[in-house]
Amino acid sequence: MNAIDQQLSLYRRARLRTAELLFTTNKDDQLSRFVDIGLIVLITLNILAVVLESVKSVHQNAGEFFYAFEVFSVTVFSLEYIARVWSVIDNPWQPDLTHPISGRIKYMFTWMALIDLLAIAPFYLSFFAADDLRVLRALRLLRIFKLTRYSSAMTLLFQVFREESRTIGAAMFVSMLLVFVASTLAFVVENEAQPDKFSSIPAAMYWAVITMTTVGFGDIVPITPWGKVLGAFIGIVGLAMVALPAGILASGFDNALHRRRTMLQERVQDAMKDGVISPQEEQELEKLIRHLNLNTVDANAIIYAVKHQQAQEKNDCCPHCGKPLHQPPDPNVST
Amino acid sequence: MNAIDQQLSLYRRARLRTAELLFTTNKDDQLSRFVDIGLIVLITLNILAVVLESVKSVHQNAGEFFYAFEVFSVTVFSLEYIARVWSVIDNPWQPDLTHPISGRIKYMFTWMALIDLLAIAPFYLSFFAADDLRVLRALRLLRIFKLTRYSSAMTLLFQVFREESRTIGAAMFVSMLLVFVASTLAFVVENEAQPDKFSSIPAAMYWAVITMTTVGFGDIVPITPWGKVLGAFIGIVGLAMVALPAGILASGFDNALHRRRTMLQERVQDAMKDGVISPQEEQELEKLIRHLNLNTVDANAIIYAVKHQQAQEKNDCCPHCGKPLHQPPDPNVST
Amino acid sequence: MNAIDQQLSLYRRARLRTAELLFTTNKDDQLSRFVDIGLIVLITLNILAVVLESVKSVHQNAGEFFYAFEVFSVTVFSLEYIARVWSVIDNPWQPDLTHPISGRIKYMFTWMALIDLLAIAPFYLSFFAADDLRVLRALRLLRIFKLTRYSSAMTLLFQVFREESRTIGAAMFVSMLLVFVASTLAFVVENEAQPDKFSSIPAAMYWAVITMTTVGFGDIVPITPWGKVLGAFIGIVGLAMVALPAGILASGFDNALHRRRTMLQERVQDAMKDGVISPQEEQELEKLIRHLNLNTVDANAIIYAVKHQQAQEKNDCCPHCGKPLHQPPDPNVST
Amino acid sequence: MNAIDQQLSLYRRARLRTAELLFTTNKDDQLSRFVDIGLIVLITLNILAVVLESVKSVHQNAGEFFYAFEVFSVTVFSLEYIARVWSVIDNPWQPDLTHPISGRIKYMFTWMALIDLLAIAPFYLSFFAADDLRVLRALRLLRIFKLTRYSSAMTLLFQVFREESRTIGAAMFVSMLLVFVASTLAFVVENEAQPDKFSSIPAAMYWAVITMTTVGFGDIVPITPWGKVLGAFIGIVGLAMVALPAGILASGFDNALHRRRTMLQERVQDAMKDGVISPQEEQELEKLIRHLNLNTVDANAIIYAVKHQQAQEKNDCCPHCGKPLHQPPDPNVST
Repeated sequence: MNAIDQQLSLYRRARLRTAELLFTTNKDDQLSRFVDIGLIVLITLNILAVVLESVKSVHQNAGEFFYAFEVFSVTVFSLEYIARVWSVIDNPWQPDLTHPISGRIKYMFTWMALIDLLAIAPFYLSFFAADDLRVLRALRLLRIFKLTRYSSAMTLLFQVFREESRTIGAAMFVSMLLVFVASTLAFVVENEAQPDKFSSIPAAMYWAVITMTTVGFGDIVPITPWGKVLGAFIGIVGLAMVALPAGILASGFDNALHRRRTMLQERVQDAMKDGVISPQEEQELEKLIRHLNLNTVDANAIIYAVKHQQAQEKNDCCPHCGKPLHQPPDPNVST
Repeated sequence: MNAIDQQLSLYRRARLRTAELLFTTNKDDQLSRFVDIGLIVLITLNILAVVLESVKSVHQNAGEFFYAFEVFSVTVFSLEYIARVWSVIDNPWQPDLTHPISGRIKYMFTWMALIDLLAIAPFYLSFFAADDLRVLRALRLLRIFKLTRYSSAMTLLFQVFREESRTIGAAMFVSMLLVFVASTLAFVVENEAQPDKFSSIPAAMYWAVITMTTVGFGDIVPITPWGKVLGAFIGIVGLAMVALPAGILASGFDNALHRRRTMLQERVQDAMKDGVISPQEEQELEKLIRHLNLNTVDANAIIYAVKHQQAQEKNDCCPHCGKPLHQPPDPNVST
Repeated sequence: MNAIDQQLSLYRRARLRTAELLFTTNKDDQLSRFVDIGLIVLITLNILAVVLESVKSVHQNAGEFFYAFEVFSVTVFSLEYIARVWSVIDNPWQPDLTHPISGRIKYMFTWMALIDLLAIAPFYLSFFAADDLRVLRALRLLRIFKLTRYSSAMTLLFQVFREESRTIGAAMFVSMLLVFVASTLAFVVENEAQPDKFSSIPAAMYWAVITMTTVGFGDIVPITPWGKVLGAFIGIVGLAMVALPAGILASGFDNALHRRRTMLQERVQDAMKDGVISPQEEQELEKLIRHLNLNTVDANAIIYAVKHQQAQEKNDCCPHCGKPLHQPPDPNVST
Repeated sequence: MNAIDQQLSLYRRARLRTAELLFTTNKDDQLSRFVDIGLIVLITLNILAVVLESVKSVHQNAGEFFYAFEVFSVTVFSLEYIARVWSVIDNPWQPDLTHPISGRIKYMFTWMALIDLLAIAPFYLSFFAADDLRVLRALRLLRIFKLTRYSSAMTLLFQVFREESRTIGAAMFVSMLLVFVASTLAFVVENEAQPDKFSSIPAAMYWAVITMTTVGFGDIVPITPWGKVLGAFIGIVGLAMVALPAGILASGFDNALHRRRTMLQERVQDAMKDGVISPQEEQELEKLIRHLNLNTVDANAIIYAVKHQQAQEKNDCCPHCGKPLHQPPDPNVST
């Protein structure tokens, strides 16, 4: 083994370690936790910086400090982006991206990688297009989406949203129909009385949506009797239709959790078939619990219930012949 | 076979093909898909046209273009209407409309046919009543209801609405009682302080509905102490009552989906009784899945679960005699 | 049998018939239906009259007509009230009120009888206190509560409300705590900036409730930074707390319907024990369905499902001995 | 036994009795009920006093009366606080606090004890910091939290909230993302048109939250076309996201009650194993029902159902041998 091979092996181990640090979350890996928490803190500070910098007095007094922080943040995020692209081919969670070239290119077009790129792009673009700085500064808020990588509960929310997308879509479609019909009617009945406020159907649509979502700013209100009847009517109907997605999502959440609990229960029953949960099975169950986003109290209650039930069943006997009902079949009986 | 017979047969085949194109949705039928998508696009463009034309500047600059588009649209929709009335007697989904005369007349009085007619009527009427064009133009928005033909999810929504109509009706009735009582009280306590705003009970009803639906425009607000107490009170009670239909609908949706999944499960169990799903059974299940508005992921999960369960049951044996419990009965045993 | 006895018997039959007409709803009794519908129409017209009379122009132009209608209505309602008190002792649904004197007095203190009395009282009182007519006229709206007698669905709503009163009460209690805390905080932070709007804690409470119910009239808005933070915060928390009762009621409705369906299912299973539903059992089931407020489609689906299941079970046989599993026990076997 | 021992024993019995009066709720203990109700009334009167005193005219006319009431209240609450700290080591519900010193110190840092202290602190502090009296007076409203000790239903609410905290947290996190993105966009599109209202991102955040919670005060409204599109959009999305927690909480309530009912059912089944509910078992069941916050109607229905089911099972016989299926095993059969 010569020096080049050794160097190459070192290079490979460094890449593997980088992939571990950036792509996996292992509670026992101190450095990985440090990297994760450090990035979360930096992203949060960046969001605060964007928000605070928009206040004129803060911007005038501490502009230089904010610029220094921006340079530091972009440096870190750029390094993070390069490190992710470099090491993704060793990411154990994405075994389809192992090819050195196509794997990296594919990764660069995933949602998360695009967000990482867009989060640093405004800084580099600001050297070329110097005039409209405000919009570019606002684009930095895209960094907030980098946080989604660390929220497992949000994954659950999006999953439920996708599962219920058909019913939510139906509710949205009917709401859209209602908005079109309501705004056309509002335009017809109010246009003459308030030609400046209900000037066109698009203007009436703004009013219809603001009314149906029950926001009701009050900057545009109907003044004709029929307009008032319409406003009251779409307030009632709109509430039922627009609030429907929230109800469907809540039901969906409930069902998703129920399914997850049933899934855990079945796994525990499988693991208990031999009467005991081995350390290896326990590890697998823990992984599953984390993967399913279940809380520990619920999970333990399920495991306890299965154990308790099986202990009882073992003691059940046939009332007539007295033989135990739930014992493994007698191996002497020929089948 | 002479030429007339041939022509008649051609005429019949053309009518059958037209019915296929307009009334059925077959994924493998390229032309049928093209007709469907074409009509959906044209309806959507029409809605956009109605909305845009209401903007004064757009109407003044591109009025002629919009008129040309209107002529084109009405031509297509008129042809579609005639084609539907002509070919409906060959529609396989409505076998009760096969009679050449009474079937077509019955069809013309179905909801969908009336909407088709009302969607083109404003154009023809505009030749006779030339003055109040704006209302007629707005009526063209009825074309939006032509879209409902293509939304299977909306059918589900209306079904749930009908199923839960009793409970929703009860909530609406109580809400109505509350509106009447609240508006009378508001009229009594506010009329003297604000005779222009709370001028009559109908005026107070507008305020009560806008408050109870939590829209709260703010154009009419109570100023007397008792009026403010009343406003706060109906805000709380109203929210609970008026938001109730949304909750009931969401629950209803949930139950409807649950029932649909159970229905599929039962059919799969029936199909699996002989131990295998034949190609014909698979086709029937696919039809059922589409008919029940289930998404593919859910449906496949159900099918997989039934298969898995039956595979397990087959291996279950009696713990004492060791005989398999779920095998077909022994044909030698005389019954 | 002399003439007095005959007259007495006639008097009793008349009272029994009156009780039938006023207290029971029998679909086959034409006159009873006519009385019910007549009263519902008259009540509805009365509500419309109260609402319309409050409009000044209507009152000035058609005051005499409204007065005549009022005299007619009060006459009918007075006769109805007297007839109810007179015949209630023959009401089959209230067998505890059969005593001629104490039964009638007890009835006069039931909710429905008090509403009936309050609905006609304003008219008679107007002869004595002639000045403040407007409030008295408004009190006539109490007649709307006479409608509740005819709404079986509302009974269900109140039942669910009572069942869920503990959880709704808990949500209301927490909401009340929040309102007190929020209004005190709002008073502390906004009182100096807007001494006229946040003049006292009660004034701030009005703002807090209007914000937490998301009505948001906009007549009182926070202008200090901390006031705005508070407004945004109680908007979020308030929505979750105040919308909770609606969600709980919707869940409760769902559960109530589920329980009712299970109850019907059990009754059908009982009735099917002998293998057939006798005409008498069918009548009892129909009564139950009406009593439980179930819709006919659901009820028939439940009855069909039970029949189908029992038909299948009959054909199940033991796979080994071939004997049918679900037949009545052999009477020859001595126990 | 000398006099000192007797006195000590008296002292101990007095402490035990105090703990009983303050920490337990026993329906048969008249004095304990009196103490509880007395404290609840006093707290309620204190809240009313804080609210009323904020009204300037009331404060000027009855200031002395309110001060006297305040002195009285603080005296009672101070005595209550001292008595609680003194007797907590005899509190049967907190057996971990029996140590005379560490137990009392631990108790002083529980939530309830801290609230008790903060509720009286403002009065004593007012002697030192005499100027900013208004804030100190407002702090007295903390006494409202003393009420939470007496609300068992609120305990249920907090429990459900904790159980569902993950899903609610996910919804809140997504809402927060939306608020940040929406306010940045609103700032970009509206800042130029309304530099005074959308002056910074924090200002736009206030608008975004007020819009997304559908409060919609109307003090800040978008006036640019893109701002109006944004307002309509976040009205729709916001409603679904912000109303989600209410739906999740309602579902959670429903599940919590379901779990509680199942728990009671299991206990009743256990108690019925010997065929009868003994008086001691009945007492335990009653305790459980109170502990689980179940209403009496539900609980009795569950107990009745279990009794009914077991009565039926007893009569079930094997269809072939005729032997009863659910009798205790024959003791003569050797196992």
